[in-house]
Amino acid sequence: MLNFEKAGGLVSAIAQDAATGEVLMIAWMNAEAFDETVRTRRAVYFSRSRNKLWRKGEESGNVQEVKEIFIDCDADAVLLKVHQLGGAACHEGYKSCFFRRLDAAGLSTVGERVFDPAVVYKK
Amino acid sequence: MLNFEKAGGLVSAIAQDAATGEVLMIAWMNAEAFDETVRTRRAVYFSRSRNKLWRKGEESGNVQEVKEIFIDCDADAVLLKVHQLGGAACHEGYKSCFFRRLDAAGLSTVGERVFDPAVVYKK
Repeated sequence: MLNFEKAGGLVSAIAQDAATGEVLMIAWMNAEAFDETVRTRRAVYFSRSRNKLWRKGEESGNVQEVKEIFIDCDADAVLLKVHQLGGAACHEGYKSCFFRRLDAAGLSTVGERVFDPAVVYKK
Repeated sequence: MLNFEKAGGLVSAIAQDAATGEVLMIAWMNAEAFDETVRTRRAVYFSRSRNKLWRKGEESGNVQEVKEIFIDCDADAVLLKVHQLGGAACHEGYKSCFFRRLDAAGLSTVGERVFDPAVVYKK
């Protein structure tokens, strides 16, 4: 169903807020992450930096309930429409990871900060 | 501003309909593609299969006018809010490349077909 060969066993995965349409984040999935996402209806990604499955929300509690799953024309990207528990997808505490906008004057933070990562991750 | 090192000189680029919020496609950008996108306000990607810049719409005329540019927390992904000329982003003639939905019964085509690729690309 998906072509995992084009990017070394991975496909791109976009999470979009099912209610508002806001694009929340982009990450990667291997076959195991995709299968678990489909089966459990919770978003599971593959962390390239940690080289293992990343069950979104396993630390913060901010899991993503998967409402719909779409696959693109090339079968190398997945779009998840999700309900983001806790209201923030970004580990920096913003609703969306795309919280910075590039304008003529440069980058500015336009996203809404929902939580303080120092409190949530207790690191 | 962007980290092109994490994926061999490339970052992910998502195009989203600026008016409706529909996710249209995902592709790649190298530094040159990103710079030209910012400068011209038209989406320019990097085609891995053709190993060159891909000025979206150069064949079909369906260019993407860039309304807003966002950068993610890791600085390895770009989100473009665009106006898609011709109404279809997908080379298969659909509004969005994510025109197939995975349900319990399998994949089904749910996207709207805007043009016939055999006519537009004349191949």
